[in-house]
Amino acid sequence: MTTNRLEAFSDGVLAIIITIMVLELKVPEEHDLHALWDTTGTGLLTYVLSFVYIGIYWNNHHHMFQLVTRVTGGVLWANLHLLFWLSLYPFTTAWMDESDFARTPVVVYGVNLLCAAVAYFVLQRLIFQAEGPDSELQRAVGSDWKGKISPLLYLLGIALAAFVEPFLGMLPFVAVALIWLVPDRRVERAFEEHEAA
Amino acid sequence: MTTNRLEAFSDGVLAIIITIMVLELKVPEEHDLHALWDTTGTGLLTYVLSFVYIGIYWNNHHHMFQLVTRVTGGVLWANLHLLFWLSLYPFTTAWMDESDFARTPVVVYGVNLLCAAVAYFVLQRLIFQAEGPDSELQRAVGSDWKGKISPLLYLLGIALAAFVEPFLGMLPFVAVALIWLVPDRRVERAFEEHEAA
Amino acid sequence: MTTNRLEAFSDGVLAIIITIMVLELKVPEEHDLHALWDTTGTGLLTYVLSFVYIGIYWNNHHHMFQLVTRVTGGVLWANLHLLFWLSLYPFTTAWMDESDFARTPVVVYGVNLLCAAVAYFVLQRLIFQAEGPDSELQRAVGSDWKGKISPLLYLLGIALAAFVEPFLGMLPFVAVALIWLVPDRRVERAFEEHEAA
Amino acid sequence: MTTNRLEAFSDGVLAIIITIMVLELKVPEEHDLHALWDTTGTGLLTYVLSFVYIGIYWNNHHHMFQLVTRVTGGVLWANLHLLFWLSLYPFTTAWMDESDFARTPVVVYGVNLLCAAVAYFVLQRLIFQAEGPDSELQRAVGSDWKGKISPLLYLLGIALAAFVEPFLGMLPFVAVALIWLVPDRRVERAFEEHEAA
Repeated sequence: MTTNRLEAFSDGVLAIIITIMVLELKVPEEHDLHALWDTTGTGLLTYVLSFVYIGIYWNNHHHMFQLVTRVTGGVLWANLHLLFWLSLYPFTTAWMDESDFARTPVVVYGVNLLCAAVAYFVLQRLIFQAEGPDSELQRAVGSDWKGKISPLLYLLGIALAAFVEPFLGMLPFVAVALIWLVPDRRVERAFEEHEAA
Repeated sequence: MTTNRLEAFSDGVLAIIITIMVLELKVPEEHDLHALWDTTGTGLLTYVLSFVYIGIYWNNHHHMFQLVTRVTGGVLWANLHLLFWLSLYPFTTAWMDESDFARTPVVVYGVNLLCAAVAYFVLQRLIFQAEGPDSELQRAVGSDWKGKISPLLYLLGIALAAFVEPFLGMLPFVAVALIWLVPDRRVERAFEEHEAA
Repeated sequence: MTTNRLEAFSDGVLAIIITIMVLELKVPEEHDLHALWDTTGTGLLTYVLSFVYIGIYWNNHHHMFQLVTRVTGGVLWANLHLLFWLSLYPFTTAWMDESDFARTPVVVYGVNLLCAAVAYFVLQRLIFQAEGPDSELQRAVGSDWKGKISPLLYLLGIALAAFVEPFLGMLPFVAVALIWLVPDRRVERAFEEHEAA
Repeated sequence: MTTNRLEAFSDGVLAIIITIMVLELKVPEEHDLHALWDTTGTGLLTYVLSFVYIGIYWNNHHHMFQLVTRVTGGVLWANLHLLFWLSLYPFTTAWMDESDFARTPVVVYGVNLLCAAVAYFVLQRLIFQAEGPDSELQRAVGSDWKGKISPLLYLLGIALAAFVEPFLGMLPFVAVALIWLVPDRRVERAFEEHEAA
């Protein structure tokens, strides 16, 4: 079973998620920059953040599946499980935004980010299993320090939001986005070697 | 005529259906977990259920079309017919959810599930006809006990909701989701043999 | 230049158009069949009609592009022009539905149907030009009586709606849907011969 | 790394952007042409304009990636950056429309157009870098006078809207659309030579 249709379906869902978040941006009633900032200021910032997250997942998903050779039933469902958590981003983003970063919505947003990270991790594990221990992908991903530090940073953000100050919790969330913004060179390099071979 | 574009179009429609259901989730006005539960508690549960159903259809559709070799005009329309019933899931899910599982909306939801199952059955029949009696697909699907028991369970759920207690009707619906959650190994196995041959 | 990406983009737009129309269906406030019929009765009927129209365009588009060998700049824009008129279907369908088939909305709906038919005709002409006079496609389409009678029926429907009775105008519109529901065997046959050759 | 999935994802996002703008068109409460014009007159005009812009970007994107041979991490992110600005078109179009072309919304719309043009320019630069100085694409694009004059026209429109009269600012915006409506023959010609070679 090839990865084509799984990738096409995931692309479709991610394209829709990334685009419908803009529907949450309310058009200001008045017609000056002040109204724009009041109505959609934080909305725009959270839109940018969630846009970057979805972009990161698409990017990593894209890189990973370049080296995947076979799709099992488990991988199909692990992929849908990941898409499920990502599909909640528009909802949790909108709640956090409309509450002006109140405690509970920020924590819920962090939990959503964490669940997606765990789902991605599970998907990666199942792919490793299907590919076997000596697969090109497994060697390419290597130690995967980004994948290991991200859930810890999400947990830190959740804890900061829950027990200290909601807005402080945003800092580790933004940090994760910045860490991942650089695509994973290791996979890219392995792929180039694979092409060259 | 190849199956590529039919699969791509179906993927697009399923990706949109699975994602726009999240637009039905109302953002809570207040900012605590209690408000989240009150506003979107059942909404989240029904979202998960309908997400799983669409995932199942995508999964089975994906498996089935791996073994389809030719697309006739009848198959194109049977596929659109299936997509039509699936496109109503966001609507019937929202009505059931907003009514807090009132009798009629639960029955209507069940009828929608049943119609989609019948449409899938019709699609499968037309594909069997096009492929011929000795097709790989037909042997792969075999007795198809899941496909036969699902409509019966939907009927049971509709009857329970209509004549006993709406919420009881949900049990057979959930049972169908659980039965299908495991992808059909038979088709998968046949496909692997097909690849190996 | 291949037709792949043009087809993929068109599939995406058509998949979205066909699916967002369901967002126009308002969820009934009350929880019985009477409320369902009152709130969404005509909405469901017009949804079915527009769903069938988009299905027909997808179907014919799909058949036509099977035999297209080259895409020119003119074809790209003629295709976008067709998608533009189709993208207004959710809007004109919703207005007609919410007005309970009032005169002007029915006429506007008919004009929208007519514009899409003209746009399809223009697209077909430009493809014929690009393919040359002896192209397989041109021979396959042949006399194209359906393509010629559809605009006439739309005009008849518009005239009936404008000068006699809005609801009467729906009859020719429905007739066009029924005529096209059968996919064009001629193109299909030519394609099969093309495959066999 | 091939361009397939980047193109498919971009097609998905562009297809959704171009289609959800129609959701901004409010259905008139009354049922005559006067109400249609009052409610959606400018809405339809701005919808057409933004539809054409997205069509132009899709068209140019499509032409450019026909000649792209390798995708780097930088190109992936530059592409997402372009999609981000394009994803704001429905929002800025709706604000401009609902304000009946008030000063600030028209300026903001122009800034959005400008940012997308800059993002496209950055994407093109990164692709040139990846392809190398003697790439087919670079020769095909040549002097790129359209790409150079567009930002200047956007700036002119922004200045006219900000300091003279908002509606006047629309003229250079419309001029850009008209300039680009003709697809870039140079790339097309280079591609044909590439095919012939």
